[in-house]
Amino acid sequence: MKLYGEAMPAPNPRRVRMFLAEKGVALPEIQVSLRKGEHKSAEHRARNSLGQVPTLELDDGTCISETISICRYLEALHPAPPLFGRTPLEHAHIDMWVRRVEFQIMTPVGMFWRHAHPLTAALLTQYKEFGESNRALYARGIAWLDRELNGRDWVAGDAYTIADIALLTTVDFATFTGLDLPEDASNVAAWRARASARPSAGA
Amino acid sequence: MKLYGEAMPAPNPRRVRMFLAEKGVALPEIQVSLRKGEHKSAEHRARNSLGQVPTLELDDGTCISETISICRYLEALHPAPPLFGRTPLEHAHIDMWVRRVEFQIMTPVGMFWRHAHPLTAALLTQYKEFGESNRALYARGIAWLDRELNGRDWVAGDAYTIADIALLTTVDFATFTGLDLPEDASNVAAWRARASARPSAGA
Repeated sequence: MKLYGEAMPAPNPRRVRMFLAEKGVALPEIQVSLRKGEHKSAEHRARNSLGQVPTLELDDGTCISETISICRYLEALHPAPPLFGRTPLEHAHIDMWVRRVEFQIMTPVGMFWRHAHPLTAALLTQYKEFGESNRALYARGIAWLDRELNGRDWVAGDAYTIADIALLTTVDFATFTGLDLPEDASNVAAWRARASARPSAGA
Repeated sequence: MKLYGEAMPAPNPRRVRMFLAEKGVALPEIQVSLRKGEHKSAEHRARNSLGQVPTLELDDGTCISETISICRYLEALHPAPPLFGRTPLEHAHIDMWVRRVEFQIMTPVGMFWRHAHPLTAALLTQYKEFGESNRALYARGIAWLDRELNGRDWVAGDAYTIADIALLTTVDFATFTGLDLPEDASNVAAWRARASARPSAGA
């Protein structure tokens, strides 16, 4: 089994590496250079027709794409510690938090990167005014999250989960793009310090 | 256990109704009128701080939001027929397809609706040129999907799954917004006819 990925700051490959670090599992990661366009090669498109990373290739050649789906599969192989929950209610609750992070926080970051960042301007048609409008959506999403995190240590409750991995990779990528955390988001800042102090954050 | 939802054409509440119809399970659905702003009331925000529907309320008052997370919970209570798969590999594969539908197909439909449709213009700041650009992204997503569906009956393979529910609600909502299926997408059109012929499509 091997992983096709890409180095920092790409947030999705980092999610899988952090997940593996939390599990204490090592998996070979073959670099697919986005800068060189290797993800769009016929070879990689045979693994994932969308030309995305990360992609997990099983020993029989079966490929799984989409970060969270890859982690879900790895959770079944390596159940401890549980990062997707243990009961149906925990599964649903953690899944809800992953999706909230993706739709409320990651979508504006992605749209800002896609439509307002100078590094993507040369590659894509940008709608800059729209792109810039995502600064406010990101700030609004973080403000909402800050209220939600009041009094709890981790995104989905008492335990560190895949939702924390989804959020840390997102806010770190946001910082890379130039979207800083609003200064008054003290609960998010404290959470970020806790999450960043875990060895997995270096993955 | 009860559901807070909204009538057609809202795609997310319909997803849960279709899921329940495929399971043969009845659940009371309390209408939360989006037009009247009931989803933003303090009462509904206590169930979901984002003010979204659908939300599932358990008998002890616990609430679960996010459509797919709700369906995941209902799958655990009513495993037959399996709509999220039976093995870890099937789980991951179907999850991948749900996410591909959401990111490749539903995101451009949502952005078109949000930024280019006259019905949302009165409620939201629109970036129209960006909104209109999602017509081409939707067409590109459908063209990619059309190649993927070549030779298979359902989105994730031989069996009807939650990924088909995610896609049918999306293309039907797209039609409502004025985004038609490209005429040459014959595999997607044939799939849509199959999915629409199931009793659950009326939910």
